[in-house]
Amino acid sequence: MNRRKFLKTAAIGSAATATLATPAISQGRMEWRMVTAWPPNLPGPGTSANWLADKITKMSEGKLTVKVYGAGELVPATGVFDAVSRGAAEMYHAVPTYWRGKSPGIVLFGNFPFGMLAGEQHAWMLHGGGQELYDEMYARFNLKPFLCGNTGVQWMGWFKREIKSAEDFKGLRFRSPGLSGEMYRRMGAAVVQLPGGEIFQALQAGTIDAAEFIGPWSDSALGFHQVAKYYYWPGVQEPASAEECVINKEKWDALSPELKQVIEVACAATYAYSTAEYVVRNPIALRNLVEKHGVQVKQAPEDVLIAAGNAAGEIMAELLEDSDPLVKKIANAYVEFRKTAMENARYSETAMANARELPYKFGK
Amino acid sequence: MNRRKFLKTAAIGSAATATLATPAISQGRMEWRMVTAWPPNLPGPGTSANWLADKITKMSEGKLTVKVYGAGELVPATGVFDAVSRGAAEMYHAVPTYWRGKSPGIVLFGNFPFGMLAGEQHAWMLHGGGQELYDEMYARFNLKPFLCGNTGVQWMGWFKREIKSAEDFKGLRFRSPGLSGEMYRRMGAAVVQLPGGEIFQALQAGTIDAAEFIGPWSDSALGFHQVAKYYYWPGVQEPASAEECVINKEKWDALSPELKQVIEVACAATYAYSTAEYVVRNPIALRNLVEKHGVQVKQAPEDVLIAAGNAAGEIMAELLEDSDPLVKKIANAYVEFRKTAMENARYSETAMANARELPYKFGK
Repeated sequence: MNRRKFLKTAAIGSAATATLATPAISQGRMEWRMVTAWPPNLPGPGTSANWLADKITKMSEGKLTVKVYGAGELVPATGVFDAVSRGAAEMYHAVPTYWRGKSPGIVLFGNFPFGMLAGEQHAWMLHGGGQELYDEMYARFNLKPFLCGNTGVQWMGWFKREIKSAEDFKGLRFRSPGLSGEMYRRMGAAVVQLPGGEIFQALQAGTIDAAEFIGPWSDSALGFHQVAKYYYWPGVQEPASAEECVINKEKWDALSPELKQVIEVACAATYAYSTAEYVVRNPIALRNLVEKHGVQVKQAPEDVLIAAGNAAGEIMAELLEDSDPLVKKIANAYVEFRKTAMENARYSETAMANARELPYKFGK
Repeated sequence: MNRRKFLKTAAIGSAATATLATPAISQGRMEWRMVTAWPPNLPGPGTSANWLADKITKMSEGKLTVKVYGAGELVPATGVFDAVSRGAAEMYHAVPTYWRGKSPGIVLFGNFPFGMLAGEQHAWMLHGGGQELYDEMYARFNLKPFLCGNTGVQWMGWFKREIKSAEDFKGLRFRSPGLSGEMYRRMGAAVVQLPGGEIFQALQAGTIDAAEFIGPWSDSALGFHQVAKYYYWPGVQEPASAEECVINKEKWDALSPELKQVIEVACAATYAYSTAEYVVRNPIALRNLVEKHGVQVKQAPEDVLIAAGNAAGEIMAELLEDSDPLVKKIANAYVEFRKTAMENARYSETAMANARELPYKFGK
């Protein structure tokens, strides 16, 4: 999908908040509204929200029909947390990363610079005690959360000029949201907050020098390659940006045990479905960017990575001593689980991926 | 769980084939038998089969109740494929790797030495055309298959003596099953086929020099550390051993669309659940093996990895020219998808995992 075609069908932050009427209920059948932080059908997060809603609807035999609303169709992208918290919609699909203003502890459920990879983040939830902390934090806001997707490791982003060293980040006008932006700010960047739909024009107009969004597949739909030629990896600011499906807690508590299972299992399956999709779409999109659009793919210099790591580490050090005991507890649990996950990766996935690159002959 | 306690409750290949009575059906409710290739409740594959059965039962509100049988309780481990094929049980839980004798193409759905990682294997199924080939192959046997778990990268195994170079594999009496064994055989090993439950005694008696099973968590339950002190990584013979849930095709075809969705989504969720569990359990089990049992953890020398890669590559070269057009098609699709997945990993997970190991300060 090209940018023009995608934008034509997507209402990026344009529609106003519509009236939130109570959904239809008939003969024990419910219709729930899933408000999302995405343009409708955005490749990646948007299509993954659709898949999740479809699975819940089908598995429940329509007892719980979930209808997806794009950002701005019922509530704006930034309003979904509050809307579901107060019961104006039953559930939302977004990323924990967006809710740093609610509590600095929330971001740890979604993504942390130099933190856990997608599988590790899910493992923390499913087997490492993460879900209990996630529940405790979101209960403060009358919400019940599940992780339900992940972009995997993102890219460092689109740059109009080459990056030779960490010095080049000083004063760089760089679009990077939330915590990622905070990391780059500590490296000296002049970080700019902009909605995804406004990045292209800002790069084109030259009001920013660089921008990071997601990765090759999702980025291609927004056309950044037309206005910035250097594409840097790895996106150490987002080793794993998890998506979440969050339900109004009273609505959740009132569900039957069977429907609770349907939602919980559908979220876990969607996590796998979503994570897997990037594995397929990113390299194909990348080939297209390089071969058809002359994009120059560049590895970030090591001193940039180390400076970024130190900045991320500083932010974590603050969370570990946060004045809110729950934030402190979440940060400590995160750091401990990350350590365990890194021990695991060294002997398994990373070791294997590195061994796979050795010089041997495979196949024809 | 220690070995004695585990073996006490597990009937490893001991029980004979029981009578397969038709399961109870009442008022549109079905009870299906899931026969497995595992000792009941084996940490990892066995517990994952239990979780899957439980989710299908609960999400379907008991319309489809799945009862799990350990290896030997209804049919022996090696008999589950045929039993479900002929309808003597409705579904089984095992690994594609076991069915190389049915077709050499089947192993590619489960694991291939130097092949895809767990997430990549699932991505091939969900988004890369793998499921269609998997369906086509299993339809020959009256079966409908889904992947539903993965051990992740395994370990190279337990060795009584140190491995200094690829030369040390010459004549090594090494327990390694199926295709993994075939790879080590081509490296000169005297490969031995033994059920999991007989490895401990063979190592103890000295009739074998080394053995690979799964990884720290599952291996600990079988006590190999008591009889072999060197534990080698990475397990290049099994970068991702996928588990499968396979259903008798006539039973599958007769299911309602809703129950089909329940099974499909439960399998995808179990894949995530299972893969995630190893991330947590393996490093904890490894710490215990090293600190409490003096196990010596060793990285396989590079020349061993390269020799293994070449042996794996030889096997793949044969599959790419197999006389069965379907096997050839599967092998070609596998190699192509592996290439794409490797392109992706280089810029994402592997790059991030390596960056995470750089010298920076993270947290306190």
